[in-house]
Amino acid sequence: MMDYGINIWGNENFIIKNGKVCINHEKKPAIIDIVKDLRNDGYKGPLLLRFPHLIQKQIESIYGSFNKARKEFNYKGKFNAVYPLKVNQYPGFVKNLVRLGKKYNYGLEAGSKAELLLAMAFNNEDAPITVNGFKDRELINIGFIAAEMGHNITLTIEGLNELEAIIDIAKERFKPKPNIGLRVRLHSAGVGIWAKSGGINSKFGLTSTELIEAVNLLKKNKLLDQFTMIHFHLGSQITEIHPLKKALNEAGNIYTELRKMGAKNLKAINLGGGLAVEYSQFKNENSRNYTLREYANDVVFILKNIAEQKSDLEPDIFIESGRFIAANHAVLIAPVLELFSQEYSEDKLLLKEKNPKLIDELYDLFKSIKPSNALEYLHDSIDHLESILTLFDLGYVDLQDRSNAEILTHLNIKKAILLLGDKQNPADLLAIQDEVQERYLVNFSLFQSLPDFWGLEQNFPIMPLDHLDKEPTRSASIWDITCDSDGEISYSKDKPLFLHDIDVEKENYFLGFFLVGAYQEVLGMKHNLFTHPTEAIISIDEKGYEIEGIIEAQSILDTLEDLDYDIHEIMDILNERITNSKLVNEKQKKHILGELYLFLNDNGYLKSIDGKED
Amino acid sequence: MMDYGINIWGNENFIIKNGKVCINHEKKPAIIDIVKDLRNDGYKGPLLLRFPHLIQKQIESIYGSFNKARKEFNYKGKFNAVYPLKVNQYPGFVKNLVRLGKKYNYGLEAGSKAELLLAMAFNNEDAPITVNGFKDRELINIGFIAAEMGHNITLTIEGLNELEAIIDIAKERFKPKPNIGLRVRLHSAGVGIWAKSGGINSKFGLTSTELIEAVNLLKKNKLLDQFTMIHFHLGSQITEIHPLKKALNEAGNIYTELRKMGAKNLKAINLGGGLAVEYSQFKNENSRNYTLREYANDVVFILKNIAEQKSDLEPDIFIESGRFIAANHAVLIAPVLELFSQEYSEDKLLLKEKNPKLIDELYDLFKSIKPSNALEYLHDSIDHLESILTLFDLGYVDLQDRSNAEILTHLNIKKAILLLGDKQNPADLLAIQDEVQERYLVNFSLFQSLPDFWGLEQNFPIMPLDHLDKEPTRSASIWDITCDSDGEISYSKDKPLFLHDIDVEKENYFLGFFLVGAYQEVLGMKHNLFTHPTEAIISIDEKGYEIEGIIEAQSILDTLEDLDYDIHEIMDILNERITNSKLVNEKQKKHILGELYLFLNDNGYLKSIDGKED
Repeated sequence: MMDYGINIWGNENFIIKNGKVCINHEKKPAIIDIVKDLRNDGYKGPLLLRFPHLIQKQIESIYGSFNKARKEFNYKGKFNAVYPLKVNQYPGFVKNLVRLGKKYNYGLEAGSKAELLLAMAFNNEDAPITVNGFKDRELINIGFIAAEMGHNITLTIEGLNELEAIIDIAKERFKPKPNIGLRVRLHSAGVGIWAKSGGINSKFGLTSTELIEAVNLLKKNKLLDQFTMIHFHLGSQITEIHPLKKALNEAGNIYTELRKMGAKNLKAINLGGGLAVEYSQFKNENSRNYTLREYANDVVFILKNIAEQKSDLEPDIFIESGRFIAANHAVLIAPVLELFSQEYSEDKLLLKEKNPKLIDELYDLFKSIKPSNALEYLHDSIDHLESILTLFDLGYVDLQDRSNAEILTHLNIKKAILLLGDKQNPADLLAIQDEVQERYLVNFSLFQSLPDFWGLEQNFPIMPLDHLDKEPTRSASIWDITCDSDGEISYSKDKPLFLHDIDVEKENYFLGFFLVGAYQEVLGMKHNLFTHPTEAIISIDEKGYEIEGIIEAQSILDTLEDLDYDIHEIMDILNERITNSKLVNEKQKKHILGELYLFLNDNGYLKSIDGKED
Repeated sequence: MMDYGINIWGNENFIIKNGKVCINHEKKPAIIDIVKDLRNDGYKGPLLLRFPHLIQKQIESIYGSFNKARKEFNYKGKFNAVYPLKVNQYPGFVKNLVRLGKKYNYGLEAGSKAELLLAMAFNNEDAPITVNGFKDRELINIGFIAAEMGHNITLTIEGLNELEAIIDIAKERFKPKPNIGLRVRLHSAGVGIWAKSGGINSKFGLTSTELIEAVNLLKKNKLLDQFTMIHFHLGSQITEIHPLKKALNEAGNIYTELRKMGAKNLKAINLGGGLAVEYSQFKNENSRNYTLREYANDVVFILKNIAEQKSDLEPDIFIESGRFIAANHAVLIAPVLELFSQEYSEDKLLLKEKNPKLIDELYDLFKSIKPSNALEYLHDSIDHLESILTLFDLGYVDLQDRSNAEILTHLNIKKAILLLGDKQNPADLLAIQDEVQERYLVNFSLFQSLPDFWGLEQNFPIMPLDHLDKEPTRSASIWDITCDSDGEISYSKDKPLFLHDIDVEKENYFLGFFLVGAYQEVLGMKHNLFTHPTEAIISIDEKGYEIEGIIEAQSILDTLEDLDYDIHEIMDILNERITNSKLVNEKQKKHILGELYLFLNDNGYLKSIDGKED
């Protein structure tokens, strides 16, 4: 049976039981049962399920690994972590994160005014807040307010101008001041698709010359005591550990050098984020070459080493892993609406008494194909189809001939695949798979729910929620419901996807898209005005599960209001146009108005095509 | 002087006058004057300006070209156009479009329920509505309601299931029925990055076999009279005309074949969209190889030809160009906040009495570099810098040495460029340009305002709004204000960008991003919670310009409310935390609460870094 690589990407969070994907926690419920409950309550269309126990697991594993490494190496610096809000700012995630992180003093990182205000409202008391990214005077003032409120906040400086602004503002404001961090520009570059945020030509950070200037500026303005942290960031999703080790060495030396210059309160090194998530469904395509344990051990060991060499204090360690914390907490579930079959059975053939020669030949191929000639006949069939298509464009054959050629070619391809069995030349077979793949129309928007697939070709694990006790036989492409040809996850030779042969008029078939908890929500695009799907929070205990915090996908009226339409105007115009219609009578108008009201107040996702409840 | 390719992409919409970009219409105002007016009224941060006269120009040019071609070829079919809402659904655009399109009977295309309801509210009476994309029973019912209201609507079928649903629903509903279109799957594939929406493996459309089935189904259910249109779409932004010609031939033959089968009301061929926009700023990189005139002539000529050959009716022509209509109406203006200079002057050098050997050597290179050895010394300097960086990581040299090496290497690079002048090996020089480029921090989010740059590497023309009477001297990279390393438009060898050397503390410097009116708004991502920028509609006449329809960027509270935060909860918590703070006195608390209120109700974009009003 196909396990869709669940042991590669699944992180032991999911298991297959009785042919269903189950959540590997406490009572181990099947995801499909949760989905059915929600659908019975009227929540159709795509669903985003959040699992707080998976947030907890990631928080525990980060603190656990680092604290174990600290113990093992007898490391005297403290360990701190903050969660970067940009990865997922949605309340269903953030509020659970803050609640579950309380006992660790887990903090938040903000990269904009809105994120900082969010952090100031929801961060646990005394847990750290760090602020990265470019800052204007307003943002710096908000940072000072956070300190005045009692937050343990550090503003990380991205350039000397920001530092000058802080110095100015410190003169104007009240006594409590935020701590100051300096982002250092390392020459050690990261590896991975987001690598350019590290490195000497990076968008971020101070050069050595600027670091020296910064310390001198702080000294001169009697703010050197506020300087507590240096920060670097190699980029999101670091695929190899080697550049991190180089970067730690470099940053460790910068730390001791700055302390030598008199920065006696500089006690922390912030490694930024980058801890990778394994997204791959295929063994030979792993997304990272290290474990969290190795990562933690390397960090602690290298920093300890430098401190020893330079006879200096072992620095406190800060990390800002976001993807690692958030990615696996959310699963997107979307129902298959329809299969667009390339299925042509022989009974659809409508051969004429007198057919074009090529059609007769295609029919002969169909009748006489056998293992020894299958590959040759297959190629002949495809050639013939192409010739017929050209003849059609030139007006020499008619639509029925063209249809007959389509059917016969597909029949020949299917027969050839069957006859070739395992003996075929794989390259040939794979090329053919592409011709006969099944298109699964799935009720979701790829642009809204998997933007990183569109923008970065980031793969997310995909699997059906049930039928896993049967071998999937269809090479499949997934179509979303936008009218955009980019809204497709194609079957590809390196990343084949097989799904089950389902009659969706008889039974539901759901696909799960996993590891979508990081970045996908806030980057979601409103293409064709499809919005964030309906979400729910699922708590699991030994007795079963509970569904809480349901937030339904936005209604069409709300969506239009967000675009700044006056929805009363829209309602009035529709009302008037219906009222003025001469094509329907008064009773019919009343009925139509009622229907419209319902449609406008429902979300824009599809229901079902065939009349059966989706 | 550099004109930033304005004659390649500008479509005569913009001209340079007195060193400023002006709008080439009526009074020809400078864009920067409009921007200054808006900023004087308090609208800081990025601005999206819409120019209705540019919408009008595109509508006129499409109708003009096709009607001219029809006249020239004495074509008897009608010409119709609909605008696909998915390209831009914002009211500031759509309402102007509908108003300006009224006299042409210009219609709307919808690809989802929300878009269809929008079309039903705002489409001009009697102007056509087409509905593409996948449809559930609800969407089909909405289509019937549109017909019942009196709209001239055509539902384009993407699969046989949809047709079956229409047949069912037609039995249940009132008398007026929508027209039915069939989307055909062509074997002629498009060319260009969106090409996969054409072609035999396309996401969309019916095969010949399915077309025959569809006509039979319609016949059987007495709905054949409703079948009025066939539709195809080669993909957005068609870069070459050749595939269109092939597709038209194919579609034209399908049209006559279906009519032969008895579809006597089939009178229209809908070509979909795809009319390309010229985005390139560089002569050798044109985005399309045809003009609108050629496009229109080809369409009319080919369809006429087929009708003649087959002695059939010349079909009505429908097109659904969206990008061509919407792209040029909007310009994004963003102020440069700061230049992150790689400028190191000699006076920052702090050489010690005894320096590491490599530093002394770097200094010697600096003193003795001359034209004959410049390239060699340049390479030596870079090698030396790399060695110093390694020595630093190993603890052999200190931060001051590292800073000295940085400064000397940069001085050597700059001197080498100066000395090599025009004699340099271009490959070498270009590699060096990358080292010394200037980073311009610009107050916008690339994810929010140019998503296609992020996702598809689609270039948009960029140029400063003034200073165009001076040669720009800085090879430039543009940084946005997100804390994402992807938020950068880098200087590249094929697409060099040069900007002016500006002291932003003394004067403002604005960049314009052109042709952003198609897709960029609705695909905008809320990364770091930056939202749609402030927009305004600019009407221009012979006397000057008027600024109307200002919609300010969302406030932070509204943004958080959209994520489904309870903003009253946020305000209450912040209030309570400030009230309970022991770090500030009562008077200070009052002051802080007032500040916070302002920040929460302002948008999240940056203001200024240096204290000067941005």
